[in-house]
Amino acid sequence: QLKEALGQMNEVDIAEFLDELDVEQEILVFRLLPKDLAAEVFTYLENTEDQEKLIGALSDKELREVLDELFLDDTVDIIEDMPANVVSRILRNTDTSTRSQINQLLNYPKDSAGSIMTTEFVYLHPDATVEQSFARIRRVGLDKETVYTCYVTQNRVLLGVVTVKTMLLSAYETRIGDIMETNVLSVTTHEDKEDVAQMFSKYGLTALPVVDGEDRLVGIITVDDAMDVIEEETTEDFEKMAAILPSDKPYLRTGVFETWKSRIPWLMLLMLSATFTGIIITSFESALNACVILTSFIPMLSGTGGNSGSQSSVAVIRALSLDEVEFSDVLAVLWKEIRVAVLCGVCLGGANFIKMMVVDRWLMHNPEVTPLVALVVCLTLMLTVVCAKIVGCTLPMAAEKVGIDPAVMAAPFITTIVDALSLLIYFAIATHVLGI
Amino acid sequence: QLKEALGQMNEVDIAEFLDELDVEQEILVFRLLPKDLAAEVFTYLENTEDQEKLIGALSDKELREVLDELFLDDTVDIIEDMPANVVSRILRNTDTSTRSQINQLLNYPKDSAGSIMTTEFVYLHPDATVEQSFARIRRVGLDKETVYTCYVTQNRVLLGVVTVKTMLLSAYETRIGDIMETNVLSVTTHEDKEDVAQMFSKYGLTALPVVDGEDRLVGIITVDDAMDVIEEETTEDFEKMAAILPSDKPYLRTGVFETWKSRIPWLMLLMLSATFTGIIITSFESALNACVILTSFIPMLSGTGGNSGSQSSVAVIRALSLDEVEFSDVLAVLWKEIRVAVLCGVCLGGANFIKMMVVDRWLMHNPEVTPLVALVVCLTLMLTVVCAKIVGCTLPMAAEKVGIDPAVMAAPFITTIVDALSLLIYFAIATHVLGI
Ligand SMILES: [Mg+2]
Ligand SMILES: [Mg+2]
Ligand SMILES: [Mg+2]
Ligand SMILES: [Mg+2]
Ligand SMILES: [Mg+2]
Ligand SMILES: [Mg+2]
Ligand SMILES: [Mg+2]
Ligand SMILES: [Mg+2]
Ligand SMILES: [Mg+2]
Ligand SMILES: [Mg+2]
Ligand SMILES: [Mg+2]
Ligand SMILES: [Mg+2]
Ligand SMILES: [Mg+2]
Repeated sequence: QLKEALGQMNEVDIAEFLDELDVEQEILVFRLLPKDLAAEVFTYLENTEDQEKLIGALSDKELREVLDELFLDDTVDIIEDMPANVVSRILRNTDTSTRSQINQLLNYPKDSAGSIMTTEFVYLHPDATVEQSFARIRRVGLDKETVYTCYVTQNRVLLGVVTVKTMLLSAYETRIGDIMETNVLSVTTHEDKEDVAQMFSKYGLTALPVVDGEDRLVGIITVDDAMDVIEEETTEDFEKMAAILPSDKPYLRTGVFETWKSRIPWLMLLMLSATFTGIIITSFESALNACVILTSFIPMLSGTGGNSGSQSSVAVIRALSLDEVEFSDVLAVLWKEIRVAVLCGVCLGGANFIKMMVVDRWLMHNPEVTPLVALVVCLTLMLTVVCAKIVGCTLPMAAEKVGIDPAVMAAPFITTIVDALSLLIYFAIATHVLGI
Repeated sequence: QLKEALGQMNEVDIAEFLDELDVEQEILVFRLLPKDLAAEVFTYLENTEDQEKLIGALSDKELREVLDELFLDDTVDIIEDMPANVVSRILRNTDTSTRSQINQLLNYPKDSAGSIMTTEFVYLHPDATVEQSFARIRRVGLDKETVYTCYVTQNRVLLGVVTVKTMLLSAYETRIGDIMETNVLSVTTHEDKEDVAQMFSKYGLTALPVVDGEDRLVGIITVDDAMDVIEEETTEDFEKMAAILPSDKPYLRTGVFETWKSRIPWLMLLMLSATFTGIIITSFESALNACVILTSFIPMLSGTGGNSGSQSSVAVIRALSLDEVEFSDVLAVLWKEIRVAVLCGVCLGGANFIKMMVVDRWLMHNPEVTPLVALVVCLTLMLTVVCAKIVGCTLPMAAEKVGIDPAVMAAPFITTIVDALSLLIYFAIATHVLGI
């Protein structure tokens, strides 16, 4: 009955189910799968150690059958996760032409367009007719990742694309060269895979041709792989913005030690850089002694400053990653943030003044909260909000300019800087206004 | 020459170019476009006020031509942004059947699968042959958003899907019912569009059928629209995690006042809730007076606590939104976070003890930093890190459980709670250990 139940399931769900099993059971169940389904399921397995054991348990014949069904980009992804002996066994069990294509794909740098493309596409000759082209698709289409966009090439140079939809809506005797779209979006092998993935969502693509330096078509990227890249890159951005070093395993599959390793570096660095805030407070010890109530507003000031700054930094980081904003917009961004900051600062300062007078002084009978103290706190608050928003929007832009990932310039980093800034502003204003 | 240059450009790039122009020029340039391209360009315009003026400038005949070329889901998206008089003009210029389909699509709730689907799909009869089906695709395919996945229906009930690839690889006389895939992923109209979009990336889909309560096929969702949803929802998550109310306009197109409105509510709320930290500090005023140096470590403690907490919360929020973690995993998550927290706490505490002894006491000659004070600070640090990580991972899980968006439980919220927690721990330990 298991075999029947598996037949009703989607390959992704089967892989999820296998990932939950012990490796021995996993091998047993895997063997029950029809071989085309088995290959698909195999690419979706997330536990690479189990994948390795599974390969080990397959006979050479079984392995060849699975490899034969796999798309090349998926084979390459698997190879990248396997130890050398498994890799050489995989390569031994593929034919010469496949092996050379695999080796070519393995050579592209980690984050390049080449690393996410596949070499299995349909190419057509411009002089072929629609009828001849359909015949060709029928002949070679089975092993291609998509047949719906066909690439028109001559001496391997990309001339245009033609979709099956266009072909279906044209007469059988039409020449491909006459109906192809020559105005083709393409990328080169070394382009950044994140930028390439972004193109899919910007232009609404389902496949994108990849060419080499001489405009020769070397592969295509399909939308499902672009979506995977977007998902991974978004997760990476979230992690960076929370001061976590990127890892590429799902949350519950990452070990405690691994998680610790990805979290401790930034925590340590940010903790040690808080030495500066400590020094600032120590050097204003006498002022704080003269007016002890000032201390109680420090967390509010640094908290509000940190929040204001991270609002700006996150808004700018996201706009940068969606290409809505470029470095050349820096003045427009700054001018906008300053105006927003002044509006926010005035509102927060005003509200806080009323709150301090009503709640702290009147309701809680705290005579130390004089109007002058409230003035100091609220002036600091306004200035802090403005500084925080300026820092928050300029740092990510500057990072983008010098080639650092702007995502690093988010909450944790901004907060640490704003902490120190708000204290400096606070004590400067306090010593002047209160004369301490 | 402009006309020629436009002919070479992608519709998305033309729309971007038009968005930069004044509305008068925009109308002139738009009129130069061939009408099929014009419709595509129109859907990509981002400035809705300009879109409205553009519609106003078109004659009824021109408007009908554009509307005729638009896919229904895009028409509906445009209608949703237009004022009543423009909407009624648009509806007046569509035929009865289109109008009733538009009205049906407009009725689906804002975040539902129905709101992102289109009713333009190809359906085939199970008894038709491949040859007859190709003839049908040629006849009706032009106006369909995708022809590559065809839906096999009988009395409007979805029986299966068949791809053009399968049809191309089958003999012309094959019955569709014999080659269709009956094991079909589908969603219902009222499902959440974010969950639906996530299915595209999980299962690597290019289109997904939408059925009503009686399993009748009412529409399809295509991958380009799913990618748009993912992008919007990710932006929304980033905004929520930075204490910004979601807006749906690009950064530079949002006015200062609008930006202010989306940022001030959380800033205000979080600022006012910092009243508690103020109260805590005030009530330990005498302790702080007895040992003034304690004040200088408050920013470091709350900063490190906040960072530790937001690491956990962001990791859990992302895992929740990718469906890697569910509420039932709460104990596994908690147990993992506690172990990570202890590891981090011990490292940070140890490092900080050494730093306080070497830097603060020895290098900076600060006799107030006694080993006992360092002990108080480091114990607080460890406990704060553990509490912060517990709060950071449980709040998003709890939010998910009660139906609040977990993204709200990120850095700003966690930081405010951890600020108060760290102070309570600090003063409790200080009063005990230092006897003040
Ligand atoms: Mg397993
Ligand atoms: Mg790869
Ligand atoms: Mg990049
Ligand atoms: Mg789009
Ligand atoms: Mg692929
Ligand atoms: Mg990135
Ligand atoms: Mg414009
Ligand atoms: Mg819609
Ligand atoms: Mg949702
Ligand atoms: Mg995928
Ligand atoms: Mg659409
Ligand atoms: Mg569309
Ligand atoms: Mg959401």
